[in-house]
Amino acid sequence: MLYNYERLHKFCFHIFERMGCSAEHAQLASNVLLAADLRGIDSHGLARLLGYVRLWEVKRINVLPSMKIIHETPSTATLNADAALGLVAAPYAMKIAIEKAKNVGSGWVAVKNSNHFGIAAYHAMMALEHDMIGFALTNASPLVAPTRSTERMLGTNPIALAIPAGFEAPFVADLATTTVSNGKLEILERKQKNAPLGWVQDATGEPTTNPSILRQGGALLPLGSDEQRSSYKGYCLGSIVDIMSAVLSGAGFGPWAPPFVSFLPLPTEPVGEGLGHFVGAWRVDAFRPKEDFKKSMDIWIKRFKKAKPINPNEPVLIPGEPERLAEAERLKNGIPLIEPVVNALKEVGQKFDLPFESFS
Amino acid sequence: MLYNYERLHKFCFHIFERMGCSAEHAQLASNVLLAADLRGIDSHGLARLLGYVRLWEVKRINVLPSMKIIHETPSTATLNADAALGLVAAPYAMKIAIEKAKNVGSGWVAVKNSNHFGIAAYHAMMALEHDMIGFALTNASPLVAPTRSTERMLGTNPIALAIPAGFEAPFVADLATTTVSNGKLEILERKQKNAPLGWVQDATGEPTTNPSILRQGGALLPLGSDEQRSSYKGYCLGSIVDIMSAVLSGAGFGPWAPPFVSFLPLPTEPVGEGLGHFVGAWRVDAFRPKEDFKKSMDIWIKRFKKAKPINPNEPVLIPGEPERLAEAERLKNGIPLIEPVVNALKEVGQKFDLPFESFS
Repeated sequence: MLYNYERLHKFCFHIFERMGCSAEHAQLASNVLLAADLRGIDSHGLARLLGYVRLWEVKRINVLPSMKIIHETPSTATLNADAALGLVAAPYAMKIAIEKAKNVGSGWVAVKNSNHFGIAAYHAMMALEHDMIGFALTNASPLVAPTRSTERMLGTNPIALAIPAGFEAPFVADLATTTVSNGKLEILERKQKNAPLGWVQDATGEPTTNPSILRQGGALLPLGSDEQRSSYKGYCLGSIVDIMSAVLSGAGFGPWAPPFVSFLPLPTEPVGEGLGHFVGAWRVDAFRPKEDFKKSMDIWIKRFKKAKPINPNEPVLIPGEPERLAEAERLKNGIPLIEPVVNALKEVGQKFDLPFESFS
Repeated sequence: MLYNYERLHKFCFHIFERMGCSAEHAQLASNVLLAADLRGIDSHGLARLLGYVRLWEVKRINVLPSMKIIHETPSTATLNADAALGLVAAPYAMKIAIEKAKNVGSGWVAVKNSNHFGIAAYHAMMALEHDMIGFALTNASPLVAPTRSTERMLGTNPIALAIPAGFEAPFVADLATTTVSNGKLEILERKQKNAPLGWVQDATGEPTTNPSILRQGGALLPLGSDEQRSSYKGYCLGSIVDIMSAVLSGAGFGPWAPPFVSFLPLPTEPVGEGLGHFVGAWRVDAFRPKEDFKKSMDIWIKRFKKAKPINPNEPVLIPGEPERLAEAERLKNGIPLIEPVVNALKEVGQKFDLPFESFS
């Protein structure tokens, strides 16, 4: 069924307010969460609201955080997010990075003691209106086995980069460093279909097409799928994201990253505080007059759109294009929510005496 | 056959000097080129010396460059490399980045009007002795088709990141954003073996196992292999490297990147100058006391080494580990060069009246 964006946003806003967030934070967190639903990244939007509420219930989310810069240079900072919603901590960090980039050409903020931050693209895209290139990384719950291992050591650890253009729409990359994210497996499970080989392995490290294998000790595979097709490169990229987000900031890294689900225990001997992010921005005109850069980016985008297609009905896509089209369509026609998500939202509404139905 | 490192280095140094390089540049270029041979990246070392000489013969390499910073902020710069050897331009740019990082926490240099720079890891690793995280990207000759296309639009565009540790060896990632590099195909060709599916496609975009397909209009595939296994992520990463290296600096980007082989024509309507690189460094202690960071990195590395292996004889590797072991072994026992490479070196020696045999 389709739901109106404004109404879903209002529901989400009121839930965060009832949890105790300030109006400003509730607004921001709702913007970030709903940006995922608008852009078609359904796994990272309202589908996770109940998850955030449960983390708050077990006191892992602080709705009135006192976020502090604990280390700083002209182009860098480290932020202790005080167990804030990542949805709030990451935009706060990105604002600091943008200010630093205004002053010295680039700005970088490592964040510790945070929680899941929604879609990485939201934070990277904050740089665009300032004619900057935005960058966002985060570590996440361990679900991914390194090449040659059966053990879940890394999260789906995304890399996002947003690059402004001139007349063309911006280039917006946002990719999990695994073959696919967990959300794609859940879709197959619901449809009772098999996964292609190269997405997951079972508990012994054997390739499998079982989309439910993560609940049986299996693991997601790094981008590349198997060693012959260079999955160690995906493992390497996921490791870089883990180190930049969590080792550099002082957060929980690798298998010690705190799990998103509230029923799993936290590491008994933590190596850092909470989850980590790494965000940053380069000012375009710190390298080249911005008009020249934008003209070249327009040429780049137009040329790649015209790259000779294998199938004339499937043209080459520019990163961010499918998400931008989804956003336009969903703003107009509404956001599709599947029944399990609607049920979860109803459960959230009941917790706070805010019936979901009254918003939809 | 095995060749002594010192002797190969001496030969290489004298060749660059005879080309007209200063002793300083000849030394540096030989260091970078031989670092590839030492680290086991045979495709990027002496195997390419003849290629560089041929580029110089057609006047595409300037052995007495006047490299200039043409744009600058406290944390960024753009360098016009004046058609220098990339082997010389990239370390020059990296030194600027390191100085900037000393001053303001991080430093970033975009380079245009350059040539191939050898292995990206060399440049990223320059940051390690300063307790910085080093970063290096470059675009390259177009050989890679974006997902859904038959056209070669991108190079193998590598990403390198070097991260210091404490007692453990540093974490050194250096990965082409394709399933495999061209060098791995050449090895299969020589052995007359087929390539696994997912490495290359033919001129019509069909999957193929023919390792010679690049000479018949085929293309390398982006990391991920096919659309079902998310090759658009590899395409996206390769695009990021292209834009950061070449659009940001003002070099030739995408299909306009100048080809490494001297017999291919340069683009008739260039969109920028030469090849582009992007290098940078973050000071570790711009985020966290360096002792704390190094202690955490040691924990990270030790834990990942102990990740439960699928096969007890194949432990999980840390990025940079195989290359470090190769370097130790080859420094001791010599560098293996295959016959075609030795023949190419003999040809180079003849051009300059420096018999290769007299150095081996």
